[in-house]
This record gives sequence, structure tokens and C-alpha cells, in this order.
Amino acid sequence: MDSFLKLKSEFDNLVSKIKIPGAETRMTSIDPSNYKLSDKIANLTEKDLLPHIDTAQPETREFLQCVINILLDYVNACNNRNEKILEFHHPEDMKKLLDLDINDNPAPLQQLIVDCATTLKYQVKTGHPHFFNQLSCGLDIISMAGEWLTATANTNMFTYEIAPVFILMENVVLSKMRDIIGYSGGDSILAPGGSISNLYAFLAARHKMFPGYKEHGPRGLPGDLCMFTSDQSHYSVKSCASVCGLGTENCVMVPSDEHGKMIASELERLILERKARGQIPFFVSATAGTTVLGAFDPLNEIADICEKYNCWFHVDAAWGGGLLLSKKYRHPRLSGIERSHSVTWNPHKLMGALLQCSSIHFREDGLLLSCNQMSAEYLFMTDKLYDIQYDTGDKVIQCGRHNDIFKLWLQWRAKGDVGFEAHMDRLMELTQYEVKRIKEQSDKFHLILEPELVNVSFWYIPKRLRGIPHSSDKEKELGKICPIIKARMMQAGTLMVGYQPDDRRPNFFRSIISSAAVTEKDVDFMLEEIDRLGQDL
Amino acid sequence: MDSFLKLKSEFDNLVSKIKIPGAETRMTSIDPSNYKLSDKIANLTEKDLLPHIDTAQPETREFLQCVINILLDYVNACNNRNEKILEFHHPEDMKKLLDLDINDNPAPLQQLIVDCATTLKYQVKTGHPHFFNQLSCGLDIISMAGEWLTATANTNMFTYEIAPVFILMENVVLSKMRDIIGYSGGDSILAPGGSISNLYAFLAARHKMFPGYKEHGPRGLPGDLCMFTSDQSHYSVKSCASVCGLGTENCVMVPSDEHGKMIASELERLILERKARGQIPFFVSATAGTTVLGAFDPLNEIADICEKYNCWFHVDAAWGGGLLLSKKYRHPRLSGIERSHSVTWNPHKLMGALLQCSSIHFREDGLLLSCNQMSAEYLFMTDKLYDIQYDTGDKVIQCGRHNDIFKLWLQWRAKGDVGFEAHMDRLMELTQYEVKRIKEQSDKFHLILEPELVNVSFWYIPKRLRGIPHSSDKEKELGKICPIIKARMMQAGTLMVGYQPDDRRPNFFRSIISSAAVTEKDVDFMLEEIDRLGQDL
Repeated sequence: MDSFLKLKSEFDNLVSKIKIPGAETRMTSIDPSNYKLSDKIANLTEKDLLPHIDTAQPETREFLQCVINILLDYVNACNNRNEKILEFHHPEDMKKLLDLDINDNPAPLQQLIVDCATTLKYQVKTGHPHFFNQLSCGLDIISMAGEWLTATANTNMFTYEIAPVFILMENVVLSKMRDIIGYSGGDSILAPGGSISNLYAFLAARHKMFPGYKEHGPRGLPGDLCMFTSDQSHYSVKSCASVCGLGTENCVMVPSDEHGKMIASELERLILERKARGQIPFFVSATAGTTVLGAFDPLNEIADICEKYNCWFHVDAAWGGGLLLSKKYRHPRLSGIERSHSVTWNPHKLMGALLQCSSIHFREDGLLLSCNQMSAEYLFMTDKLYDIQYDTGDKVIQCGRHNDIFKLWLQWRAKGDVGFEAHMDRLMELTQYEVKRIKEQSDKFHLILEPELVNVSFWYIPKRLRGIPHSSDKEKELGKICPIIKARMMQAGTLMVGYQPDDRRPNFFRSIISSAAVTEKDVDFMLEEIDRLGQDL
Repeated sequence: MDSFLKLKSEFDNLVSKIKIPGAETRMTSIDPSNYKLSDKIANLTEKDLLPHIDTAQPETREFLQCVINILLDYVNACNNRNEKILEFHHPEDMKKLLDLDINDNPAPLQQLIVDCATTLKYQVKTGHPHFFNQLSCGLDIISMAGEWLTATANTNMFTYEIAPVFILMENVVLSKMRDIIGYSGGDSILAPGGSISNLYAFLAARHKMFPGYKEHGPRGLPGDLCMFTSDQSHYSVKSCASVCGLGTENCVMVPSDEHGKMIASELERLILERKARGQIPFFVSATAGTTVLGAFDPLNEIADICEKYNCWFHVDAAWGGGLLLSKKYRHPRLSGIERSHSVTWNPHKLMGALLQCSSIHFREDGLLLSCNQMSAEYLFMTDKLYDIQYDTGDKVIQCGRHNDIFKLWLQWRAKGDVGFEAHMDRLMELTQYEVKRIKEQSDKFHLILEPELVNVSFWYIPKRLRGIPHSSDKEKELGKICPIIKARMMQAGTLMVGYQPDDRRPNFFRSIISSAAVTEKDVDFMLEEIDRLGQDL
């Protein structure tokens, strides 16, 4: 803790070395004092509303409408470029600004209204056009309306009995997604995030290839199972090896090339090496859109190797899957995905569905059920009024499952296939614009590689380092600057762009364009603002 | 499929043997034709709204407000006893009633409004006072408002950077929950459902007791790991053995007594039996509130055995955990939970938080991190502006994590501790009322056991079987009646109560009172309606 405080103090000095205007020029329009319930209900409590009081429809409606007024104002604020993206405070300071205590006694309704507004006042506006920080950016209005409805319907997805419309929607949308991947038939499920989706793929693969594993574990196998993924893959793939009992040393990290793509010949070499040790290679997870660089592994080459060595071929397209919707960008990036056994694809990323919305698709039907069912007859009975093939509870490891379909269905219906394709093409076009602008300002910015997706990796070059030839020493200096500029962004509240190191280089910026709110002007702003914030470094 | 159709036909004949009034006497007030956007925006599409058109605040607001009007009407409908709970249609018929297709072209905004209303028209009203079907019933108004806000904030929970207020709320609420359990210190996380929470417990236990397992898997251990849970436990416990590579045969199902409680002496016998085989017992999952009978395992006795044999003691209180909030009902049911190593507790069940809201708590701090971190430095950097101990991304197997805290925090704030305690006591009081009413009508109803929780297990006795002494033959007949009455309920749309078989008996009804909407009159209605629907059987 002491060393943290020391580092923090040095860091704070650097961050605040110069006065960075910003905070003063931007506004925070959500003001908790603006939202007032009528005197009649302000001091009521939740016990005075539905369902406790049958006649409390008007009071309930007024309270909910007041919450909605805050939300509608927040939607406007998110779309206003003059708004701060965030009001940054350190955790200990933020605690003092907020009143988070839960008391013995109920809070009056007016207090709850203030709580809602205060929460949004200090929340980071992930839908702001200057938020380039995360793979999930943006605030899709239709998907948001869908999520509001989902909350109000408040049902679980395990049976047709209690979620008839939503279960049918899942069938329609997931079947459509499998068609787009290039599967005929198959099966799918919506899961709570890409990591759990990848876990489903791992489990299905193990079950398909070693059906006795479910009951007996590794006993009886002639060697240890091992799996393969690139050193650029999402860490959840390696996590499968830990969670599922292989041990992380049996998740082999295949080297990637300088573009971040798995080197297929290295995959083959490592499979042979593990086989020579008596291990059983059974699962390869290729990545279509890596987290940092946005790279696509060579799917066809990997598919060939999987066929040759009888491995399950999984594609983690959590991030890049959205490009399947674009005729222009799908090939060559995702060519070969139709040869896979399973695909993770997160609509909450490129497609902008609200969090969370992640899907896992299988070429073979029936595997989810045979892999995951525990024969909980007491929950999923077969003597029902309706055709129980629509029940999903026995196919998943979760039992209860959140309804993640309605927001996606409504959004897709609102856009149509044409709209989603145009959205993908637009995000890629804006990315190309950013690349062009970075290249045009090569004195100030250093593009690390030509992106295949909407991740743009670059360094900002401060004045003192301009004109000096690029070298690893220079990279180290450029890397040190990223956290300082990021800290200044957050304090100014004007911009959010992420940075991170990777295996090859120290910290660098990685901007993400996955929000429909972003325009060319916003891209220009991002680069200008980084320059402004880094002028003295 | 043929045998299904044959069964279905016989079943349908029985269901419709008599004309059951019901559908005609109840209304479905959500009518899609009632919701009209103004002519000005009805034919616009989502491309005409924010964020695509900067000046489209009014249009965006009108569209969203219209969705909200539907939701507010649905809230009223859920609380109206004259409303049908559901409009049942078989899946193939429902498909014909709905237009679920996603087209090439965008749907106009008015169509999306109709879609929202139609979806709710055919959705099961899980918040209706006559819905006794699921562990999660009810529609808490405050929690719903919280979930609306959560959708609008649309952020991920992995770092303080992008979810500052929500991360601090998680700390406040989860720490409070650990205090209530009886832990001092410790660590917790919100997970997508009780099954994943149980998985977290299993993983932490394995990691704590065998720290090399994460990297090396079972190699080097002197025997196979094995785990124990009762034959009444939730199937997700057994699923851990499958998912995590032990094999389900190493999840030992400990017999329960006639009340559904684990027999502690049997646990000890089975631990010894497995040890004698050279296996390593390491994990015991007790259940506090079983799914079907609502039974509580004897926690103190199990804790003693876990201490004696050095096993991790997990309590799956997903269902019964809410009673920790009640001084009156906490003891003796949950006595001993403070001796556990981990506790699953789902606020989306007894506490009525919106789906999903599940928590897992650990007595020891630091385990979640050391167990689950994959050192994804590229995502969770340590050179940040703020104290990174608030970041949670590296503690979970999910990476991205839905914000499940705000709805719970707001709800708890609205109720206060006093309000939650009163809610628990009220649910138990209503359950006792139901038991009393069943006993008073012992000609018509057969109570299977005295409940410890809000699950009431009973048979309905049709006229032809009244007065006949109870026997296993009679049970078989009673069991056959449940699916028919259930089918009639669904077709009449008047009531929802679940049924299932268990190890000891054929189908029986299990009603659940976990909704704040339920009153004594609703309990009376449930029993009267079952009698009405079963009069000729």
C-alpha cells in the first residue's frame, strides 16, 4: 500500500504538471435537484406503491415516469458532445460524494429519485461519441427499449411455459445467426458473456470426443488432454483449462505473427510436440478479432490442421463476428468459419446490442443437451401440455438464464439485415479514416499496424520525441506517456481511449470504434485531444 | 415424434374433457392497437433517431415514451386480478400468431411499438398475484426501475474506470451480505445465476486445497477428488463435477430424510467409504432451501463433519438465503451458515430482485483473485490513475460482467433492513396460512409435509378418490392428475402452480409464495381454482 501511495503521488504530479483545461468547458447536465416528485408522493415509500397497495396505480406511474425522465435526459446527455464523458473522482473521494448506505428504515421515494440521478451523474457515458475505450461502446436506442421491456417481463428462459415468445424469438434469431455462419442445422444458446460461451464450446468438444468424461473424468484416457490457442487469444480460453481441470499448462499458447495472427505452422509443430509427449490434442480455439490488435487467425489453415489431427475447431468470434454481416469485410477475414465446430459471437460488441448478449453456436445439434443435462426431471418434466423440445433449461449449465434475446431481436428487426450491414461497413470506414488521419500526422502519431478490424493501435509522440528514429528506447518513452494522457483524459472528462502493453511492446493506445454515435469529426477530436493533453510530455 | 403426438392427443382429450370456464371471464388488457406514435414519426426508422441524427431528441423521446406507456400498462395488468396470467398457445400456433421474422429492410417505428405490445400480450405475467409457479415470482417496482437505469447506463463491471458508482455499490451491498451471513471480512462477487455461483465455490475450494491444480490439473494428486451433496440438492452442484473434470460419479449424492434434509451420518459414512477407496473428499455442498421441498440441511452437523475430514463447507442458499434477513425464521434453519467457507445467495429469489441477481460469498479474502486470474495484463493494467483494488475483472471467469447490483442496491435502500425483514416474515406467514387452509380441507387436499420455507407440497384429491385411505396406488392416481390440472390452468389462464415428481413420490403440486403481490385471498383462490379445474377428474 505504501509503494502504491508513493507511485500514485509521483503519477499525480505528472498528471497535474500542467493545467489542462477541459473540465470547465464541458457540462454535466444530469442534476439530481431537477427531478421532483409531487408533494403527494415524495415522502411515500415503496410500501405505498404496487403491488402492496392495489389502488396505487397513479402513484406507481408517477414514480416510474420520474425515473424515466431521468433516463431520457441521460440518453440526451450521452449524445451531446458538450457533455463530459465522466466526472472522475478517486474511489475514496467518490465514496464521500455518494450516499450509498443502506439503512434500517425505508428511503422515501424522492430519495430514490435523487439516488437514480446521482448514480447517472457520476456514471461514465459509454454511449458518448468520444468514448473509444471498450469493445462495447454506444447506446443503441432500440436495444435499450428492448432491455427495458425485458426487465418488465422479468422472466427466466428455461421453459416455453414461462417465456413462450422469447423462446421462439431465440429460435428465430439463433437459427439466422447459424445460417450466416454457414452451418446448416445445428444448435445455439445465449450465454452470459463470451467467456462462458467459450466454456460451452470447450465442454461440448470434450463431451463429443470423450463421451465418458462427463461421468468418469479423465480416468481411462491414454494421456492428458491438451488444447491450443494463440498467444493473442482472450484469456477466457486459457481459463477453460483451469476451470475444467486440464491445468493451464495444457493450454498451449501458439505464437502469433507480427500482425497478431496465429502462425498455423507453429500450431502444427506444437500439436506434434504434444503428441510426441503422449498427450491428446483435442481442441483448437482460433480467434476472429483479437482483443487488443483486432487480428483474425487464418481460419482455413487452422481448419486443415484440425481435420488432419482430429481436433475440434472452435472460433472465438466474440469480437469480430459482427463482420459476418458485411459482404465487403467478411472475406477474407472470416473465410473458413463455416468449417468450424463451434463459434462464439457477441452481439453486444460490434453489433451494439445492450450488455449482455453473447451467443455460442454448434454445427451439430443435440450436443448441448447431451453434454449439459443432469436429468433434473423435477425441473424439466416431460409430461407437459406442449412440445417440450422448446424448453432450453436442460441444455445449459446455468439453470436460470437471463432473457438476452428480446433486445437483440428488436434491434435486428429495427435495422433489418441491410441496416446491420451498413452499420458494420460504416464502423470499418471510420476506422480507415482514423488510420488515414494518423498517417497524415506521422510526426505526432505512430501507427503500430494496419488494422483488420476497428481496433487502431498507435502511440502519441510528444514534441521532445518527434523526428527521432523509432527504436525500442523510444518505444519505452512512448509507453510511459500513455497512462499520463489517459489520466488527464479522465480528469478532463473529455475523452476515453484505452491503452495496454502487449508481448511485443510497452503501453500503446488502442482506440475502438464500435459505437454508431461516432463520426469523422469525433475521430478528429480524439486525435486533437490526445495531442492537447500530451503537449508538454 | 409420433409417440409424442399420440401422447399429446390423449392428453389434450383429457384436458378438454369438460368445458372449463376461465378464459372468457378474464381479460388481456394489453392491446397492440392501443399504442400509436404520431403520424410524424410512425414511419420513421431507427436511423432517424439518436445517435444517428443529432437533432432527433424529440423523436427519440416520443418513441421511448411510447414503449414506456406499454410497460406501465403492463405493470398495471400484472397487478390486476381480473387479468389472465397468460394467453396459452402451443408453440406451432403461437408462431402463427406472431410475426417474428427479421427482414432485409428496417421495420418502421410503429411496427416496433406493435412488436413490444404483442410480445407482452403473450408473455406470462410472472408478477401476477396468482403466479405461484417459480422460485422467482413477483415484479418489484423499485428493482424494475433499477434495471431500467442499468440498461440505460449500459456498462460492464470489470473496472472502476467504467463503472465507478456501481463498483462501490457492489462493495457496500456484498460486504453487508457477508456481515449478515456472519463472516468478518471475506470477498464476494455477483454471478449470472446460482449455478455459476456454485461453480465459483467449487473452483475456489479446489484452488485453496490444491493450489497446483490450476496449472497442472489432477497430476500429482494421490487419488481422485470427490465431492458430496444431498440427493435433494440443485443439479448445478453435480454439474460442477462434470464441468470441472471430476466426473459425475465423483459427486456423491448423500441420502436425505423424509423432510428432504441431508442425513449427516450418511455424509460421514460416504466420506469414509470414498476415503477407503483412496479418493480425496474435499468439497461438501449443503443446501439451505431445496428446490422442490424447501428443506434446510443440518448445517452445524455438516460443518462438524467438514472440520473433521478437512472438507470445504459450501452452503447453497440460493433459495433460502433470504431468510437470513429475518430474526424470526433465520434460526434454526440457517444456524451454522457462519461456519461455512462459501455461500451462494440469490437476491432474485426470495428477496424479489429482478432477474438476474445471484451472489457468491467467501469467508477468505483473495481466493477469487488467485483462483481465477489469468494475468491478463493487457486488460487489467496496474499503472492506473486510481487504486486498482476496486477492479473486479481479474477475479471472475466471465471477463465482461453484467451490472446486477444497482437494482438490488436501490431495492434494499427503498425497503431498508426493516422492510426486507417484514417481507420475509410476510411470505412465511402466508405460507403458514396456505398450510392451514390445506389442512382445513383435508378431504380435497393432501399436505405432503410441513414446509420450512415457502414451498408447499400437496396433492389435489378429486371427488372419486376422497375418503379412500392414502396408499401408493392412490398416490399414483393423484400424480396423474397434476399435469391435467396444470394444462387446464394454462388454458384457462387463471393460475400458475408448478408440479413435479421426486425420488419418493409421483407428481405433486409445489406452490411458491415469493411475490409481494400475494395475499390470503390469493392463496384461497389458488386452492379454489385447483378444485374447480379438477372437479371431474
